[in-house]
Amino acid sequence: MPIYNAPLADMKFILNDVFNAEQFWQANENLAHIDAATAEAILEEMAKFSQNVTLPLNRTGDEEGATYNNGSVTTPAGFKEAFKQYAEGGWIGLGADAEWGGQEMPKMLTVLSDEMLFATNPSFMLYPLLSVGAGMALNSYASQEQKETYLPKIYSGEWSGTMCLTEPHAGTDLGIIKTKAERNEDGRYSITGTKIFITGGDHDLAENIIHLVLAKTPDAPAGSRGISLFIVPKFMVNADGSLGERNLVAPGSIEHKMGIKASATCVMNFDGAKGYLVGKENEGLAAMFVMMNYERLSMGIQGLGASEYAYQNAAQYATDRLQGRSASGVQSPSKPADSILVHGDVRRMLLNARANNEASRAFAVYVGQQLDITKFSTDPEAVKKANDRVALLTPIAKAYLTDTAFQATLDAQMVFGGHGYIREWGMEQCIRDLRIAQIYEGTNGVQSQDLIGRKTIKCGGEFIAEYIQEIRDFANDLDADLNFIKDATLDAATEVEAVTQYIIEAAQENINFPNAAAVDYLHAVGLLSFSYMFARIAKAAKAKDGEFYQNKVALALYFVQRILPELALRITKVKAGAEVIMNFSEDYFTHQS
Amino acid sequence: MPIYNAPLADMKFILNDVFNAEQFWQANENLAHIDAATAEAILEEMAKFSQNVTLPLNRTGDEEGATYNNGSVTTPAGFKEAFKQYAEGGWIGLGADAEWGGQEMPKMLTVLSDEMLFATNPSFMLYPLLSVGAGMALNSYASQEQKETYLPKIYSGEWSGTMCLTEPHAGTDLGIIKTKAERNEDGRYSITGTKIFITGGDHDLAENIIHLVLAKTPDAPAGSRGISLFIVPKFMVNADGSLGERNLVAPGSIEHKMGIKASATCVMNFDGAKGYLVGKENEGLAAMFVMMNYERLSMGIQGLGASEYAYQNAAQYATDRLQGRSASGVQSPSKPADSILVHGDVRRMLLNARANNEASRAFAVYVGQQLDITKFSTDPEAVKKANDRVALLTPIAKAYLTDTAFQATLDAQMVFGGHGYIREWGMEQCIRDLRIAQIYEGTNGVQSQDLIGRKTIKCGGEFIAEYIQEIRDFANDLDADLNFIKDATLDAATEVEAVTQYIIEAAQENINFPNAAAVDYLHAVGLLSFSYMFARIAKAAKAKDGEFYQNKVALALYFVQRILPELALRITKVKAGAEVIMNFSEDYFTHQS
Repeated sequence: MPIYNAPLADMKFILNDVFNAEQFWQANENLAHIDAATAEAILEEMAKFSQNVTLPLNRTGDEEGATYNNGSVTTPAGFKEAFKQYAEGGWIGLGADAEWGGQEMPKMLTVLSDEMLFATNPSFMLYPLLSVGAGMALNSYASQEQKETYLPKIYSGEWSGTMCLTEPHAGTDLGIIKTKAERNEDGRYSITGTKIFITGGDHDLAENIIHLVLAKTPDAPAGSRGISLFIVPKFMVNADGSLGERNLVAPGSIEHKMGIKASATCVMNFDGAKGYLVGKENEGLAAMFVMMNYERLSMGIQGLGASEYAYQNAAQYATDRLQGRSASGVQSPSKPADSILVHGDVRRMLLNARANNEASRAFAVYVGQQLDITKFSTDPEAVKKANDRVALLTPIAKAYLTDTAFQATLDAQMVFGGHGYIREWGMEQCIRDLRIAQIYEGTNGVQSQDLIGRKTIKCGGEFIAEYIQEIRDFANDLDADLNFIKDATLDAATEVEAVTQYIIEAAQENINFPNAAAVDYLHAVGLLSFSYMFARIAKAAKAKDGEFYQNKVALALYFVQRILPELALRITKVKAGAEVIMNFSEDYFTHQS
Repeated sequence: MPIYNAPLADMKFILNDVFNAEQFWQANENLAHIDAATAEAILEEMAKFSQNVTLPLNRTGDEEGATYNNGSVTTPAGFKEAFKQYAEGGWIGLGADAEWGGQEMPKMLTVLSDEMLFATNPSFMLYPLLSVGAGMALNSYASQEQKETYLPKIYSGEWSGTMCLTEPHAGTDLGIIKTKAERNEDGRYSITGTKIFITGGDHDLAENIIHLVLAKTPDAPAGSRGISLFIVPKFMVNADGSLGERNLVAPGSIEHKMGIKASATCVMNFDGAKGYLVGKENEGLAAMFVMMNYERLSMGIQGLGASEYAYQNAAQYATDRLQGRSASGVQSPSKPADSILVHGDVRRMLLNARANNEASRAFAVYVGQQLDITKFSTDPEAVKKANDRVALLTPIAKAYLTDTAFQATLDAQMVFGGHGYIREWGMEQCIRDLRIAQIYEGTNGVQSQDLIGRKTIKCGGEFIAEYIQEIRDFANDLDADLNFIKDATLDAATEVEAVTQYIIEAAQENINFPNAAAVDYLHAVGLLSFSYMFARIAKAAKAKDGEFYQNKVALALYFVQRILPELALRITKVKAGAEVIMNFSEDYFTHQS
């Protein structure tokens, strides 16, 4: 039976010691309602919920799966009660505006509560996550009347939300979607088309489901400039807020997937369903992108949660499993063998995961803080700077955190040997469930294109230059007893700065260069970011006494010596260029001779 | 529906052009019965079998799985007929001695037929693979009478075989097994104990199952020097070869696993089962190790098969999937979007897989050839040299080929985007099925320990020095128009030579050093090996005309520019040493504070 102990000590360390969260909150009138004690109480409540409610439903949810029958979806046993409890606890609106029933908690904090839920039950977590995403898009773009109608019900958990983007022929390239929206005389629209991969497209957790649907009006411009956003409720909503007749939208089937089997992934058929325009025609994609930065960070948190869960179980297994003897002599003479923790290679796998967890958590809180500045700060310059930073780091948060976390879950499984391959130990499910995080919400390859293109080359490297400046300022300020991380971080900053310049110039020479270099560049920036996080961690830890803090500094050293060296490889690969890739004919790939 | 086209052109290129197999066979009187035409005919037959028989059973086998009911195991629909057809085709004894009904084909060839079966249905492949392994152990250590009783039936497929090693508390460390063997007055033994993870421990494919069981006699020395090997048939065998009463061995359950679900992984209970000693008491482990070199190479082939299968499907999907436009301008103006093959990042993933496939295939044939020399050569010096080479390269063949293949299957899945996560496209099953190859037959971590310890430090680096000498001789002989691979290979040889020396010295300073450095060292030797293989491929291809051969040279260049640079990172990690790993207390791993 897999274990999970919410890493509250580490979370509090990051919030309180690394980011001085209370000081940051109290200095902002829009966040003055939160202090350290409130934040800790919230984390402790979620620790209980995740350990006692969602963790026990994780394996049973995987085995039972969501099921489709006669046009409706049933979630696995226990999910309905857990969702009710989650909703009643006010968790869906944790970060939402008070006006709509939310608790207005900062993203710095909600990333940590999200981590616990993702760690213990990613399938479950996706249901409220989609509601939060839909709520966010409505909050930014919907009319006051629409907000009043939908937001309180969504945040209370009475209703839920979806995002209907993908179609069978159109995923990354939304410009070619075919779903049609025809305007009726009453101002409403008739929506017709098929959407696929719709998370929570149908289920039995809420009374109503509010679908946010991208579609094209008949005279819309071609491509992504001709996409509109519509509200399509599963049940029509009467003027008094009660539910009316069933709308003409229904799930056609659910997908059979590698993992997150308790999360219903639906094919949704819209057969002239009634829809309400959100915002203006042809401006739908912008509304979707409002929530993208938040959602994409959430996928990174999914990675962190899985990696922490996998680490904890692997560390426990390694402690308990007696096999072989230490190279340096018998360690446990009274036992038939030593624990496998005596082996450097087992420790290497565990330490890679743990270093990843601690840097990822710091990074998630850091990006959360930037999002909080964009939302709550009253200083336009600070908002602009934070917006740039969020734009730059969102692809890192999504792709780098899930790539490193996936490797961590693989390593954790390997620690178990053959037992890691068996269902009952939970590791194989963890891997299957996590894998989707590298793929959905824009594949990690697409994230890398976003980073190298829109976020770097297009602005002449301005965003990354600002980021590097912040990193340099921080590192230069470190005391000499932290030279190991100071020097490493400054060197990494210089190398990333240089390779960014290299990329900007190479892109002018060869239009195919950025696409080929993108993934390696993203990993380079990711490594620099983790080095920066460990610099912040080490500084905060060095100021304190005790083994807990000494180990933080030791882990930073581990990162510098055994993980950061990958930066040089990534840069070499960037510079290898596109020619050696693009020179092959298209036919080559499917032909053997 | 996943596709598979046996890569016959590539296989023939490797056998005929790269390794001049016919010349090698004809020069050896024990292999003179095989020529290029025979080899090609065998490969073509297996291509048909794998495409027509095992491929269609791959997904259905995964979905139905092996099932356990009332003490016996049933394989998925179609497996029984397929196994019968495979057996009747003489495939089980393809590499076995003619004396026992085998076809005496060299390993150089059987690795390629194995690849096709592993590509199309790894679960199926494991059943005959275990028979072949058991046959090999018996052929080396059993008495003439035992051989006569069991081998012909095993190679005909009437009976099958297993290897019963692992116990709940003892996997890597077989010295602590508890299964007992008590000698009876009639010279037979009573075997009592529980074995787990027994592939093919029970099934309905054959009339009888011959278990090879490791157990300890009551007065055996402690540890691995006190292990004996026994034959324990499911049904006793009468003097005339007919089946007698049921023996006291039965499956207690089967495991529910991440993948290879159609392969029955059994818990086997021995309740005073009758067993026959193989060879001498306390020398059982040596008999098991006879087949280890063969089996471990087979796991590498499992990786190669999966990687080739994943590549072919991803390349086809990338060709068919229209999404977005090329950075260098619209490529397919008549279509709504270009194929995703226009993107360098998609090509990068495909080329990584393809480079891995072609180098892995060459390496498997190379190691197969070394195994053939050990078995068929009459020159004692050549046999000694080949034995050393096999000892050195077996952990590479097992671990490096499966590590790189697993990454290739992940990349292939990513090419599919969200569709790669859905069952019907086959990619997620491919990943789940392959993952076990990195774990079983000794985890890849254990392989790395074997390489750095027994195969390198223990012999003072002699094996690797001999190998590097061969590589240098080959590279130095290359023409100047292949300087790119010549120089890269010579540089890699120098770097691996230096880091080997570094390791031997560091191990004397710090006893924990090798364990911590092992995996990175294995990857370093793996990269050098692939560079050597590409040098051989490039040389053979350069001697020919045509696009097929030009593309081989181009792929070698891709390897040099975009894969081989990882060597420097691996060496840096080796040199990072063990201290930063071992300095953490054991408690640290399971404690957060």
